[in-house]
Amino acid sequence: MPLVPREHDTIRAMRWAEDRLQLLDQRRLPREEVWIDCRSAAEVADAIRDMVVRGAPAIGITAAFGVVLSAMAHAGAADLSAAMEPDFRQLAEARPTAVNLFWALERMRRILESAPTDPVAALLDEAQAIHDEDVAANYRMSELGAAFIEAGSGVLTHCNTGSLATGGFGTALGVIRQAWHEQRLAHIFADETRPWLQGARLTAWELLQDGIPVDLLVEGAAAALMRSGRVQWVIVGSDRIAANGDVANKIGTYSLAVNARHHGVKFMVVAPSSTVDLDTPHGADIPIETRNPAEVLQLAGRPIAAEGAGAWNPVFDVTPAELVDVIVTERGVVERPTATKMLEMMMDVKA
Amino acid sequence: MPLVPREHDTIRAMRWAEDRLQLLDQRRLPREEVWIDCRSAAEVADAIRDMVVRGAPAIGITAAFGVVLSAMAHAGAADLSAAMEPDFRQLAEARPTAVNLFWALERMRRILESAPTDPVAALLDEAQAIHDEDVAANYRMSELGAAFIEAGSGVLTHCNTGSLATGGFGTALGVIRQAWHEQRLAHIFADETRPWLQGARLTAWELLQDGIPVDLLVEGAAAALMRSGRVQWVIVGSDRIAANGDVANKIGTYSLAVNARHHGVKFMVVAPSSTVDLDTPHGADIPIETRNPAEVLQLAGRPIAAEGAGAWNPVFDVTPAELVDVIVTERGVVERPTATKMLEMMMDVKA
Repeated sequence: MPLVPREHDTIRAMRWAEDRLQLLDQRRLPREEVWIDCRSAAEVADAIRDMVVRGAPAIGITAAFGVVLSAMAHAGAADLSAAMEPDFRQLAEARPTAVNLFWALERMRRILESAPTDPVAALLDEAQAIHDEDVAANYRMSELGAAFIEAGSGVLTHCNTGSLATGGFGTALGVIRQAWHEQRLAHIFADETRPWLQGARLTAWELLQDGIPVDLLVEGAAAALMRSGRVQWVIVGSDRIAANGDVANKIGTYSLAVNARHHGVKFMVVAPSSTVDLDTPHGADIPIETRNPAEVLQLAGRPIAAEGAGAWNPVFDVTPAELVDVIVTERGVVERPTATKMLEMMMDVKA
Repeated sequence: MPLVPREHDTIRAMRWAEDRLQLLDQRRLPREEVWIDCRSAAEVADAIRDMVVRGAPAIGITAAFGVVLSAMAHAGAADLSAAMEPDFRQLAEARPTAVNLFWALERMRRILESAPTDPVAALLDEAQAIHDEDVAANYRMSELGAAFIEAGSGVLTHCNTGSLATGGFGTALGVIRQAWHEQRLAHIFADETRPWLQGARLTAWELLQDGIPVDLLVEGAAAALMRSGRVQWVIVGSDRIAANGDVANKIGTYSLAVNARHHGVKFMVVAPSSTVDLDTPHGADIPIETRNPAEVLQLAGRPIAAEGAGAWNPVFDVTPAELVDVIVTERGVVERPTATKMLEMMMDVKA
């Protein structure tokens, strides 16, 4: 099985630069590549909230580096943990749905509580480990997921789940890249993904940088695409997977899942195990962020709707486990997920 | 049952002005209200193709006035019908899916073939009759459709089916207006309707002019909205209804129908009988227009997608009759449509 030429994977959403975290401003892609410097945890929290960086795994990694910045700012404090607590809280409050954020903060907190002699160095090591492990998980998932896809298939993806949404390479988009390089894919389709257009702006940009062709469509066309027989798989990422296998992901995912089942199209969710939240029993328990109506009513700051209209702007939806055919994590694969199967996968020490 | 105060219905998509047809340029709404003069059938055909005017009934009415302009241009021709034939063809080729276009041209052709002594006057009378009858049909449908909606319901609509899409008042939006004035509606939601944003630009604009509140959402959010229990009906128009009750309508409609059935939400199609095409046996026989990928890749002439991405841009999709709960025409109502029921409705001379 030929692996993806990994030298192609040069896109990164974040990079540590000695005393600051640099983030590629994803709001301005693909028109311009601008890196933003974050020199404090507060700046990192702002960047997450304002969607300079997005994508559940990328948010987790970014927050981890935010903790490093906090430790640097409070170096020498009598009680470092106490001094950093407001920063932890601010980072945790940046966005509510992606559990990777809380998972990464928890890992950082554990390092801090182990009272290392050089906390900044220890925290930086941990943040870099979180980043490196995420990339490794992506490579592992890409192989596990691609193995499900029969040669000649068409795939449809939603939002952006590539290098920009993760530590690098991607979750759902990693599987698609791998399957493309294994010559399994006849056609790649991507929803444009309103309102932020992550599909049109980010997924298309990433794929084209790798020389992989992609056709965009408006979300409304996905059902007709499935009916046409040109896609065999819908492949998406996730921001939180509940203990029972219910999947929170970018708004529009649930509609794809309902339509996929209706048309006999398979539905695959690809996410690192840090996205699985065993403390959240069901999808209904996942907090779903609702953002400013202006994100629907405007585009790039210009009004696109009639003045005076309201808008309902939920950022995520929940796809029930029974509509999911496969969940792929770096720990392994769960077909037709149930709470028992999810727990077994998460507890498997061999993984 | 209180009727809608009809003085509110002052929006018109087209008006005849002595020697020309004036069209409200719907591409520029809601930002500016600009009327375009059409002085020839060719200009009318261009306006239809370029979406100055859109909406199946409005296209039919517009084309009828285009025939009047053709007759005026060829007044005095030895063989008027032959002279006008290229104009008929050009108008018919403007857009392929909305059958109302061909239906209106056929009515105009019949007047011409009856060899009236003053063909321009006779054709103008017929075009005005087509317009007036469409408005009357809308009022009738609005009452028939609203009667299905229980008080306290939420409704979701798609695209624009109001005064701008018809002779005046609207099909699906006519039902919604009527139901609102009958105080049956707790909440009106409208899909923004990518790529042309007819929901955000036109439906919201029309409703707000009538003082009716509306909340927009991206198409991807419709399934989550249905799951939330806040809508009991999806109400849409149609560009062509096949003899078996299959419904062609704006891209995204089919996805709504699949999701409506999945969630136990009712699905209503509202269209004048001129939209029913007994010569097209099944939805699969309806020609579906595919437009320029630039409509997905750009917005208002500015690129919104990564450069080099392709796009699949079908304008309509087909909802199978089995997903439709009610078809409302001015001739009457068909529940759970079948070919037999559709034929009975269309042949009912009492109607």
